[in-house]
Amino acid sequence: MDINIIMKPDCIFCKIIEGKIPSEKVLENKRYIVIKDANPKVPGHLLVIPKKHYKSFLDFPKKHYEDFLDIVKKTTGTFSGDFNIVINNGKTAGQEIEHLHMHILPRTLGDDFKLNA
Amino acid sequence: MDINIIMKPDCIFCKIIEGKIPSEKVLENKRYIVIKDANPKVPGHLLVIPKKHYKSFLDFPKKHYEDFLDIVKKTTGTFSGDFNIVINNGKTAGQEIEHLHMHILPRTLGDDFKLNA
Repeated sequence: MDINIIMKPDCIFCKIIEGKIPSEKVLENKRYIVIKDANPKVPGHLLVIPKKHYKSFLDFPKKHYEDFLDIVKKTTGTFSGDFNIVINNGKTAGQEIEHLHMHILPRTLGDDFKLNA
Repeated sequence: MDINIIMKPDCIFCKIIEGKIPSEKVLENKRYIVIKDANPKVPGHLLVIPKKHYKSFLDFPKKHYEDFLDIVKKTTGTFSGDFNIVINNGKTAGQEIEHLHMHILPRTLGDDFKLNA
């Protein structure tokens, strides 16, 4: 564990990153983990999570934009089909855990995922 | 118009960028426009569109990740409330126009937008 990573007590994602709560990791590097969503909306639903605690996209610094989208691309680049990438920013937008995360949702024809954007 | 920008004939977004189809721009810089969605799913629904034609996120080069998220941040940074940011990648995921674009969806309590991620 990088001691420079700032953890927030009682944050579920911080606890996952610290290994205190189990998760199914599919990818990891110095700054991010990609895990299977514990309550997948579609098969293969993944979350890309910065190891450092940022409350939301608005707190996330510009210096990490490139490495953030880079791991999103590395994850989705392995997909054979279509997908949505989604950040819910704030409770009204459906953000359940106040630690920035991006949803990656592989899609298949006829799945029951609803996203009318 | 930057002559190095590559346009694709018959792409609606390329025509908007060329000014051949009208749009309501809310922000613009060298590489991107931010416009109001012509068929908004929520009030204030915006699209961030690279001026150069990329079919999808998978074609979008790493060198532009930072400036892409930077204009998304500049756009959402003016919001007083919550929002979703969404890329639909491929037809099965709801991508209607094959020119990379990010949806920005300001949210309000009780709106009728459905996104179960």
